[in-house]
Amino acid sequence: MTKDNERELTPISALGEFGLIDRLTSGIRLVNTSTIKGIGDDAAVLDYNDKLTLVSTDLLIENIHFDLVYTPLKHLGYKAAVVNISDIAAMNGTPKQMTVSLAISSKFSLEAIEELYAGIRLACDKYHIDLIGGDTSASASGLVISITILGEINKDQVVYRNTAAQGDIIYVTGDLGAAYMGLLLLEREKHVYKSNPEMQPDLEGRDYLLERQLKPEPRLAQINLLRKNGIKPTAMIDISDGLASEIIHICKQSGVGAQIYEDKIPLDAMTVSVAEEFSILPAVAALSGGEDYELLFTIHQNDYEKIKNLKDFTPIGHITDKHSGINLVGKNGEMVPIKAQGWDAFKEND
Amino acid sequence: MTKDNERELTPISALGEFGLIDRLTSGIRLVNTSTIKGIGDDAAVLDYNDKLTLVSTDLLIENIHFDLVYTPLKHLGYKAAVVNISDIAAMNGTPKQMTVSLAISSKFSLEAIEELYAGIRLACDKYHIDLIGGDTSASASGLVISITILGEINKDQVVYRNTAAQGDIIYVTGDLGAAYMGLLLLEREKHVYKSNPEMQPDLEGRDYLLERQLKPEPRLAQINLLRKNGIKPTAMIDISDGLASEIIHICKQSGVGAQIYEDKIPLDAMTVSVAEEFSILPAVAALSGGEDYELLFTIHQNDYEKIKNLKDFTPIGHITDKHSGINLVGKNGEMVPIKAQGWDAFKEND
Repeated sequence: MTKDNERELTPISALGEFGLIDRLTSGIRLVNTSTIKGIGDDAAVLDYNDKLTLVSTDLLIENIHFDLVYTPLKHLGYKAAVVNISDIAAMNGTPKQMTVSLAISSKFSLEAIEELYAGIRLACDKYHIDLIGGDTSASASGLVISITILGEINKDQVVYRNTAAQGDIIYVTGDLGAAYMGLLLLEREKHVYKSNPEMQPDLEGRDYLLERQLKPEPRLAQINLLRKNGIKPTAMIDISDGLASEIIHICKQSGVGAQIYEDKIPLDAMTVSVAEEFSILPAVAALSGGEDYELLFTIHQNDYEKIKNLKDFTPIGHITDKHSGINLVGKNGEMVPIKAQGWDAFKEND
Repeated sequence: MTKDNERELTPISALGEFGLIDRLTSGIRLVNTSTIKGIGDDAAVLDYNDKLTLVSTDLLIENIHFDLVYTPLKHLGYKAAVVNISDIAAMNGTPKQMTVSLAISSKFSLEAIEELYAGIRLACDKYHIDLIGGDTSASASGLVISITILGEINKDQVVYRNTAAQGDIIYVTGDLGAAYMGLLLLEREKHVYKSNPEMQPDLEGRDYLLERQLKPEPRLAQINLLRKNGIKPTAMIDISDGLASEIIHICKQSGVGAQIYEDKIPLDAMTVSVAEEFSILPAVAALSGGEDYELLFTIHQNDYEKIKNLKDFTPIGHITDKHSGINLVGKNGEMVPIKAQGWDAFKEND
């Protein structure tokens, strides 16, 4: 037993793999009729009669994708789930089942892993997702979280990345760049703390940015709102690596170009003010920051009347022919080619 | 560039994540009609009309589940796929799609990861599985492989673990304990090599045991043979942790007991002779060794006539009532309770 302030903490090795699984998965109830069998056999069993099944997977690695110095484990679990849920939203689908695999180094206690799992389960509860399986293992060093999500969608409602067409209007949900500003704030506080552990964190009033970084939400409500209003996007992707990287994905796969207007990119006032504090152009945070988990999508011009009065959707440009390229139109009308400077897990970070 | 004998090797960081994905997934062709969309969008899209979908996932961690000192990367990839395929076989299903997520430390070159991926793709080709997505990331230390597999099964054909009944006959496919003997041989050679790198490995004539450890096969042919002969097992599980651990899973979940006869457990002659060399009882290798990826299943007594002349199936005991417990009947008729001594990833290894 080790002690965390007042609590007695339990080493994972005291439970073993099956004990840990039992502990983490106790009380999981299945809520989807498509889930025939969840945890407890060689495979989960699903019934997707008359619907298409969507599958997506994400791997999160300690010190590559997250830093436990400033990421509470419950938030980390929630975010790991949301990253996957967002992929199903980006297909215009509804998330239904999730598998969670964890590799855990001996520095984590049972209580720590339960916190992580509580965050995952909170996201599953909120979005009515069945946790149906997974795997747990020891890890030689850091924490590894591997999540696979399944979702469903009617055959005529699935939206791909490669189906944007010239003349389509480009939209985003919510606002962009805030998650990256939250990250910069947390990194700065980490450095301050390292040089002087007595310093109090200077994060007051920045809750919105921190929440966008630590506890993002998938845009399922927006998907439903579009559906209710009879709008099916022509192409869609979620913004995990930054607007630049994502619009390039859509354009390359659709064989089209795009024009995005810098002054149309939706930014929260807090994003703008903190960007100034860090001497970063707010548009750069939106284009290259990533982790906003908003949706980037295109609609046919005929759907403009249906969407124009809906809240939380901002038109930021339009799809052009391929030869016009992928460009940002600046505030003074100048055109700059958009380049992907999205996050790359294989690059050395400074 | 680093050199591996004659070849120039490419660091992964020279490609970045998208470059690596392009390289690893080039030339992947979809073979299953249920795969509507594979790699390249936020999620893969599957169509499982009128069938149930099976989902299973496994996480493999360097120096926990595999040792690259004696595991060729191509074999490792193949085995990582097989471990998952075996779970679908254990549900009586047919594997159809797979996602592969990799976390890679900087010690691996592109060529090394291509070898790993070649092994995964070889298994997919052999068993007609579509590789439909995944994730790649840097890793702070070792290699992490996370695979999720999807399969299909007719509604009336799915076989669970919790449906064995008193009087059912217990069967296994193939032979047991060989994979563990292969592991012991490889571990011994590793120690010999470490103390004297000039020593030649003493593995001649032990190919079968090494292959069982390094390149196991899922028992899909046996599943098909049972189906062709009108036999639906009453319960089934694959043997990943050893016979003891697996029969306990079936009995606990089904609320029954079992009697297994030591002299009925199928053992290869090579397993027996190498077990003697290591002063291990061959039955212990079968009960506690694991990684054989054979199938353990139960059938109704009425199906005995249908199965008795089929090759590769061995009856090893029968299901009893719960209160009789789970026992091994020794060669002299003595009864010993079976305890799980399966592999535990959270225990310290010596």
